[in-house]
Amino acid sequence: MEFRVSSTKKQELIDITGQINNIIRDSGIKTGICNVYVTHATAGIIINENYDPNICIDFINAINRVIPEHNSYLHDRIDNNAGAHIKSALIGPSETIPIRNEKLKLGTWQSVMLADFDGPKERIVIITLIKD
Amino acid sequence: MEFRVSSTKKQELIDITGQINNIIRDSGIKTGICNVYVTHATAGIIINENYDPNICIDFINAINRVIPEHNSYLHDRIDNNAGAHIKSALIGPSETIPIRNEKLKLGTWQSVMLADFDGPKERIVIITLIKD
Amino acid sequence: MEFRVSSTKKQELIDITGQINNIIRDSGIKTGICNVYVTHATAGIIINENYDPNICIDFINAINRVIPEHNSYLHDRIDNNAGAHIKSALIGPSETIPIRNEKLKLGTWQSVMLADFDGPKERIVIITLIKD
Repeated sequence: MEFRVSSTKKQELIDITGQINNIIRDSGIKTGICNVYVTHATAGIIINENYDPNICIDFINAINRVIPEHNSYLHDRIDNNAGAHIKSALIGPSETIPIRNEKLKLGTWQSVMLADFDGPKERIVIITLIKD
Repeated sequence: MEFRVSSTKKQELIDITGQINNIIRDSGIKTGICNVYVTHATAGIIINENYDPNICIDFINAINRVIPEHNSYLHDRIDNNAGAHIKSALIGPSETIPIRNEKLKLGTWQSVMLADFDGPKERIVIITLIKD
Repeated sequence: MEFRVSSTKKQELIDITGQINNIIRDSGIKTGICNVYVTHATAGIIINENYDPNICIDFINAINRVIPEHNSYLHDRIDNNAGAHIKSALIGPSETIPIRNEKLKLGTWQSVMLADFDGPKERIVIITLIKD
């Protein structure tokens, strides 16, 4: 129960709600929780609105004001992506979401998104479903 | 297993520990985990101290210095609440907490709080309990 | 299923991946999820790289630029550690991680770390394992 997501930009939020709901439907699990986990130290999982895609742009601009891409980071001497590591540590690699009626129990304006802070890259998402 | 919480201000932290512990006690589950999930894209779940209520004021002031309420966000042209969406994406809509002795295994200074960044509103909290 | 971790500095990231994997191995659980929870309001759990230890230094410097140690916080009049509470609320006290093959399913560059923002202190970490 894992899938791959390819980002096409340096920093990007990619909706993965559909892939997760497909896995839940195929599992036959009706209620419980779904753990969504990205196995990378320069990416993360975010839940928010993307019906207005400008929210994703606003988020990326805001996080870059908070954690600038470069800021005399020590790790930049080795790999030049310290900013992406710090954003990933702050956002976190996972979210755990309730399952009801064989799908994610999201609010009307919530989508699950992979946040890539060091793309473009292929990223692995691990899904674990637990019945309650 | 859900309940509603009404905020009375634009930005507010509201303690929901008691409601969650009531649900756990009624379930009869002695050990496991409890997933607390808010189904809104301008709110979040925070765990911290509120015995000194000034910590909540300090937190709200600090998060507003990090993510100002308005900052030429694109989404503000449509709905004027982009700052609340960005804070919600950063904080996250859920926490997963151990259950021991039929209640949340919190530290002495930890309470579970709903963070509303776009109140006053009625918010829905979904609780899922999993036995270990 | 809990263990203690002692920090030696005011702010420090301490790798706890080995202790968690030992608990999983002893449990005999092959697949599922692992909830890692710290019961303190001035600490948190972070997942990121520490193979280059400079990433931990970069992270601590960055979070202190975002949330300065002192900034006229109201709680500082009582306990002088409001900055640590705000960082803890932002980072969160827990992470939930998939288990595969009787160990944490981390990426190559991911380690689980306890973040102490108000050390040196002894901190308690609670581990809950759930089979899928």
